[in-house]
Amino acid sequence: MGSSSLAIDIERIASGERIARPDRVAVEEPLEIRLGFPTPDGRALKSLSITMRTPGDDAELAAGFLVSESIVRQPDDILAIETCGPAAADGGRNVIRVELANHVDFDPARLARHFYTTSSCGVCGKASLDALHALEVAAPPAGAPVFPETTLVAMPNRLRALQSTFDETGGLHAACAFTSDGEVLVTREDVGRHNAVDKVVGRLLLDGQLPASELGLMVSGRASFELVQKALTAGMPLIAAVSAPSSLAIELAREFGLTLVGFLRGPSFNVYASPERLGP
Amino acid sequence: MGSSSLAIDIERIASGERIARPDRVAVEEPLEIRLGFPTPDGRALKSLSITMRTPGDDAELAAGFLVSESIVRQPDDILAIETCGPAAADGGRNVIRVELANHVDFDPARLARHFYTTSSCGVCGKASLDALHALEVAAPPAGAPVFPETTLVAMPNRLRALQSTFDETGGLHAACAFTSDGEVLVTREDVGRHNAVDKVVGRLLLDGQLPASELGLMVSGRASFELVQKALTAGMPLIAAVSAPSSLAIELAREFGLTLVGFLRGPSFNVYASPERLGP
Repeated sequence: MGSSSLAIDIERIASGERIARPDRVAVEEPLEIRLGFPTPDGRALKSLSITMRTPGDDAELAAGFLVSESIVRQPDDILAIETCGPAAADGGRNVIRVELANHVDFDPARLARHFYTTSSCGVCGKASLDALHALEVAAPPAGAPVFPETTLVAMPNRLRALQSTFDETGGLHAACAFTSDGEVLVTREDVGRHNAVDKVVGRLLLDGQLPASELGLMVSGRASFELVQKALTAGMPLIAAVSAPSSLAIELAREFGLTLVGFLRGPSFNVYASPERLGP
Repeated sequence: MGSSSLAIDIERIASGERIARPDRVAVEEPLEIRLGFPTPDGRALKSLSITMRTPGDDAELAAGFLVSESIVRQPDDILAIETCGPAAADGGRNVIRVELANHVDFDPARLARHFYTTSSCGVCGKASLDALHALEVAAPPAGAPVFPETTLVAMPNRLRALQSTFDETGGLHAACAFTSDGEVLVTREDVGRHNAVDKVVGRLLLDGQLPASELGLMVSGRASFELVQKALTAGMPLIAAVSAPSSLAIELAREFGLTLVGFLRGPSFNVYASPERLGP
């Protein structure tokens, strides 16, 4: 039991009986991500985001977030990642600073909700897709592996078995990166769906494994536009979700040729985009 | 079947068989919320947020978002809510403008992540709670009703029965406001958990029912800090979740005396805060 869960006292109520009992819950704390970057005059620092996350693997979370935002693509784009700020009650720190390398071309103005402002059509799903094209996000390469059906149907149990804090608390989302043979390379948990994926992608970046053109991404919940975007920016050819995808998630996967699997439970699943990457 | 779901063609794979079939998925589209507000020199307009949401009830979503941000508290704080911007492919519009009444004191600087910047202790859960005190968010009144156990255990099936689009797509979160007698006043669905709650709260605001000191809030998923905050700013004395709460959700509920119920499934549930508001 790490700092990702916390012991508390609760009451359980059933059929008029109240029983006081100890329980464990998933920890949620804010994390501020700050970015140090080169400018024509030297270097600058900017607060990028605040996310509610489960503490632990914060460097991975920050690195993965930067990949998803198309700010970094390879490990040497990052000079250093350091936690900072005052210590929280549990001794952890809730501010993390990422220093970009001098060769990285970062324009803070581009961050201003790039996902729609690059298009002239206004705020809509199509504009969100166009914005990713403008960021030069690429489709998975043609030589990507074929994922056998047997690998996919085995994944939910495999992911569940690796979800240690979920078993304690029932309160965490999980994500993992896996090979077409079903080997799980990285698993991470978080109160936020997007954070669990950012942690997986951040680990892959720091290990020099991006673009992850041989790996699939599995998520414990639904597949939204944002999660498909994260698989895409990590160079992954496939994303599989235990639950339903949204319309825009499907549109994005189809636009970029990413394989999108949903309702991956029991012996069957649905394919919403690029079924050619699935084998028997 | 409204515009909250969309027909698509998919493949279903099971035991080596591939079957092409029609399906329906939940619609996800971006919505930009803009705020018009009074200034010493006249009026100004500011883009507040972009959220990925399921189209429909956008005025409620915007109104509820403003309640959660402690910007509005009563219906006449809002002069007008109007959709604007170019029409999307389905004819809908993805920009909505809320005009605040002249008596509303809105400081755009306060919006800059008020939830932690008002505290000197840095970024942490305690700072997030302090920020809500600074916003004069109040605890539920002492005279709030008692919610019988029988009302609570009946709620999950009642909510599920009202989730029309979930039944079609499996892809939507739901929230509802209910009385201590178990009567459901408002139910809303959305791809985003927070959006479903904002739509419920926005409907209550527009109907002049805030603070909703007699109503409980039920959510289909987990209880995060953000969702407990939304119940609190709406003046609701109780929030019940089908799944687990986070540590910070519990801390917030205990700090403000809000009743927090989790794992509300089948004949039993857990109580994490203020059990005195629950009756046999």
